Amino acid sequence: MLLGRESDETSSVSLTSIHPQLSGLPNADSLKIRDFNWSQLSRGGIDILFLATPHEQSQKWASYALQYGMKVVDLSAAWRLQEDSNRAIYKLENNSEIQALQKTAVYGSPELHGPAIAAAQLIANPGCYATSIILALAPLLRANMVDLNIGIIADAKSGVSGAGKALTHSNSFMYAADNLSAYAVFGHRHTGELLEQLNLTSGQIQFTPHLLPIPRGILSTIYIRLNEPGSIKSIQDIFDEFYASSPMVRVRRSPALPQIQHVVRTNFCDLGFQLSPDGKRLVVISCLDNLLKGASSQAVQNMNLMAGWHETEGLL
Amino acid sequence: MLLGRESDETSSVSLTSIHPQLSGLPNADSLKIRDFNWSQLSRGGIDILFLATPHEQSQKWASYALQYGMKVVDLSAAWRLQEDSNRAIYKLENNSEIQALQKTAVYGSPELHGPAIAAAQLIANPGCYATSIILALAPLLRANMVDLNIGIIADAKSGVSGAGKALTHSNSFMYAADNLSAYAVFGHRHTGELLEQLNLTSGQIQFTPHLLPIPRGILSTIYIRLNEPGSIKSIQDIFDEFYASSPMVRVRRSPALPQIQHVVRTNFCDLGFQLSPDGKRLVVISCLDNLLKGASSQAVQNMNLMAGWHETEGLL
Amino acid sequence: MLLGRESDETSSVSLTSIHPQLSGLPNADSLKIRDFNWSQLSRGGIDILFLATPHEQSQKWASYALQYGMKVVDLSAAWRLQEDSNRAIYKLENNSEIQALQKTAVYGSPELHGPAIAAAQLIANPGCYATSIILALAPLLRANMVDLNIGIIADAKSGVSGAGKALTHSNSFMYAADNLSAYAVFGHRHTGELLEQLNLTSGQIQFTPHLLPIPRGILSTIYIRLNEPGSIKSIQDIFDEFYASSPMVRVRRSPALPQIQHVVRTNFCDLGFQLSPDGKRLVVISCLDNLLKGASSQAVQNMNLMAGWHETEGLL
Amino acid sequence: MLLGRESDETSSVSLTSIHPQLSGLPNADSLKIRDFNWSQLSRGGIDILFLATPHEQSQKWASYALQYGMKVVDLSAAWRLQEDSNRAIYKLENNSEIQALQKTAVYGSPELHGPAIAAAQLIANPGCYATSIILALAPLLRANMVDLNIGIIADAKSGVSGAGKALTHSNSFMYAADNLSAYAVFGHRHTGELLEQLNLTSGQIQFTPHLLPIPRGILSTIYIRLNEPGSIKSIQDIFDEFYASSPMVRVRRSPALPQIQHVVRTNFCDLGFQLSPDGKRLVVISCLDNLLKGASSQAVQNMNLMAGWHETEGLL
Repeated sequence: MLLGRESDETSSVSLTSIHPQLSGLPNADSLKIRDFNWSQLSRGGIDILFLATPHEQSQKWASYALQYGMKVVDLSAAWRLQEDSNRAIYKLENNSEIQALQKTAVYGSPELHGPAIAAAQLIANPGCYATSIILALAPLLRANMVDLNIGIIADAKSGVSGAGKALTHSNSFMYAADNLSAYAVFGHRHTGELLEQLNLTSGQIQFTPHLLPIPRGILSTIYIRLNEPGSIKSIQDIFDEFYASSPMVRVRRSPALPQIQHVVRTNFCDLGFQLSPDGKRLVVISCLDNLLKGASSQAVQNMNLMAGWHETEGLL
Repeated sequence: MLLGRESDETSSVSLTSIHPQLSGLPNADSLKIRDFNWSQLSRGGIDILFLATPHEQSQKWASYALQYGMKVVDLSAAWRLQEDSNRAIYKLENNSEIQALQKTAVYGSPELHGPAIAAAQLIANPGCYATSIILALAPLLRANMVDLNIGIIADAKSGVSGAGKALTHSNSFMYAADNLSAYAVFGHRHTGELLEQLNLTSGQIQFTPHLLPIPRGILSTIYIRLNEPGSIKSIQDIFDEFYASSPMVRVRRSPALPQIQHVVRTNFCDLGFQLSPDGKRLVVISCLDNLLKGASSQAVQNMNLMAGWHETEGLL
Repeated sequence: MLLGRESDETSSVSLTSIHPQLSGLPNADSLKIRDFNWSQLSRGGIDILFLATPHEQSQKWASYALQYGMKVVDLSAAWRLQEDSNRAIYKLENNSEIQALQKTAVYGSPELHGPAIAAAQLIANPGCYATSIILALAPLLRANMVDLNIGIIADAKSGVSGAGKALTHSNSFMYAADNLSAYAVFGHRHTGELLEQLNLTSGQIQFTPHLLPIPRGILSTIYIRLNEPGSIKSIQDIFDEFYASSPMVRVRRSPALPQIQHVVRTNFCDLGFQLSPDGKRLVVISCLDNLLKGASSQAVQNMNLMAGWHETEGLL
Repeated sequence: MLLGRESDETSSVSLTSIHPQLSGLPNADSLKIRDFNWSQLSRGGIDILFLATPHEQSQKWASYALQYGMKVVDLSAAWRLQEDSNRAIYKLENNSEIQALQKTAVYGSPELHGPAIAAAQLIANPGCYATSIILALAPLLRANMVDLNIGIIADAKSGVSGAGKALTHSNSFMYAADNLSAYAVFGHRHTGELLEQLNLTSGQIQFTPHLLPIPRGILSTIYIRLNEPGSIKSIQDIFDEFYASSPMVRVRRSPALPQIQHVVRTNFCDLGFQLSPDGKRLVVISCLDNLLKGASSQAVQNMNLMAGWHETEGLL
């Protein structure tokens, strides 16, 4: 069931009138996006509700949905951050009720929080940049391999769809095409997710996003100094073991590296790395599709876990 | 005068038969690319010879040209590196004569070596990536501001023309379009230029190139830890003073940052920076056109200096 | 089963070593591309053989496969053309045996020749441009609506993958990006397919291909003068009725028009049209993905028909 | 002098604050875009005024400027069309004063109306599509070679900058990239320019624009049936003679054809053609940069003629 605006009127539009590219696919032509109101919804029939709404709306609507007994997968940033200091950038409301609900929210990274996701009522679906960087770093940080005095550099590059559908100067063709630009250099909103999920302080990681002249895909180049000189095999083992039960993360054999074309239109996050000859410096490359593993298909992966289905159901 | 192959035959082709886009420009249609032999060339008439030839050819031909009293601007890497360890990657010949000549070669970075270029017989025109990174770092390193124990990260991204004209998989449209990939992660050939020109050891700088899905342009994102917390003003002053007499470097006012569209089809290198709130970490962005400031128009800039003309002659 | 080179050795490579983007998909990592020889193949187990081989190879191998009792779907042009005059451009061999086999080949356009495909041993899978133009014109020509004294103009534009995987100047990034060029203006090889499938003489249709700076997709703009002034409804009805049982052709409601983004990565051919105010001139726009409906997925559609499965099996 | 808004205040912004890519060019950094009012402007000092303003503004301001003794080159469509039926699409005002002024306006196609431009007070700078099609057809129509009973097809493709700077869905990166779409099929606003400049009726030419996924450049593919079978030489001679004194039109030798890369960032219009083997059908390809020969640099070319300077002054 596809829901549009909250409204007392009962109007609807067909899905394929808005997305004609979906016409002819099974059932697509009969699907409607319909106005809804909460009293109708509350009468049941919905087990899991996806919210792909602005942060403020998600904050309000998640509460409603939970009250009515639905589980929620929220694709906004409304519920991703536990620390007020990290949430401040979104200028969301804050009160004791919201704080209580926030504590129940699980960050929807299936590779990190699978069991908690399966048991959760409210999933905060991760940011696209955050997913690419967290999946690259979690194995190394948990293994205590990273020299955090030196700090981590995450130089990330994203296609234009990462900027959303609103018409802006920077997602116009004439700005983005044949161009590359850095933005939000010391202040991207996904930084808080990195800090909380990776247990880092803000001086320990620096994240710089760039706007790529392509429709979709993220590549993050991550620079790490190791606590002790390592070997290719030891690093490879750490990644392999960490993701041994994670069908949506593909770990490449060093020196092979991921590239954006390999992940676009998939739910995979691809990881690869190379080690400096002296074994001290590590470059990890992480690639995913910002619209899929970075958003909608990761939400489906979370739904699968919540529903007790196989994690990859509908995703391969 | 445009020279093609070394040959005893005296054949030629018109420039515009190969580059029809130049037809109709002043004098273009009468220009010929002609076969040549050194005995003809030696009879005089050439003051400065540009070599846009493979490294091996440049090594041989520069010697000839110098013997015949020409000055040389060589766009290959044959003469850029003084240290054998840095030259090894190019597998060039090495003997005492070449070593002697190498010592006379001046690295053609007008902003760093203006007076030496003006007096030189042999200019080694810099690499494209190297130019973008060297110009970003030289002011800060000379001012002793960079914490070299932490080391510098240079994450660089280049358009496809940087890969040359040979038909390869990685410069095919189907590979490069809608893609981004890292390559030569710990071993790009331009690294030696960075080390020599910036007086760094290989552990002090890490340079990772990426292939952008655009025809031309380089953007380098450079991560620096400062020895002492700095202020925006102090950093801005250092760049402004260093490049006060350099018409081809444009220093942006922080927080404004360069982007590739601003430099494409110009001889400018644009520099901009942002400083972390605690004043300890600096991100410098450097942009240029790899075919111009990164190659041919920087060669013209060097010629201007060698000929005693204004540095920007023909370039604005 | 994936076959590579004909060879007496029994070597193989894994599919995902060549196409790492497929890794992690069901069964993909265990798939091998293996050398083969005909004596092994002849021992059975293969019902339908796809040939994605050069024309000359397809000509030879299709004969072998048919002798061994396999059905063949050939993606080359070896078997598409019945007229020697149209075949000449491919410089294929010609003898009485080949001619006899040619007569049994069915042109694999499921929307035109469904029953014949279902009964065929040898399918000549259509060209990409040809598919887009034939599907746009067949309904109108069968309804005798086109003024053939005036003639038809088919101005077609294709993404770079249409040019194949060989490394050539025209499919290099530097040639194709930010460019558009016409080629093969009066002599594209797909013209013969248009003439035979649409029963036209060479003066009655003019087809001009262009190279688009995108990876995939074809859009053909087709200009038709009508025998009698028509109405939007009458034209719409003709398309709707002709494709009423064709799940892979989507007919848009005029004035809506197809565009390349709507068909890329699908097996659909989208058709739309607009009529001049005086009802005499018609513009039909036809879009498809040259790698799918223009090649591989149309081959699967043909296989479905040959095997008695639903036409869309595996394609939606 | 660069003028911005009409205003009583005397404020200004620097050119390079809006277009930082121009910084460092001669004089650019001191140039201001300043508010203006007509009483100031009327005091003299302006010989020729360029108007790059909306149609309605151009209609009003051109009158003012002419009253104050300035010559005007207007880049809008306000003054391009003499026939009310052709002007209707722009919904401009119409009264006897405007009609009188319209009669004095000269269509700024230097290749067609050079002497009239030199003598004019008011130049209507042509549309980009119109320029590409008119220059391709004028020689053939004046030579009476075109079979107008069959009619002309002009299938034109333009980069995104042709759509202007307003933020719209169709010039967003996500719509335009990797796409191609036809639009305004039987009703593009430039049609009137074609009819008037080429003396055609609306049934004699059909013009279909398409949106290309590139920043700039137009390629028009034009289909012509000849009155009498022609020879390559005869067609080549007609183009060569017609443009013998036109330095900004480059006529290619058949079968060479123009392509967009050859004209981008130039004021050239490139023309090329191929003839069918029977000599009856002609395809003419016309390329130009929609922002230059299709707009601003053609305006400069017109200024040069009005000022008595060489046509190419500042343009090569």
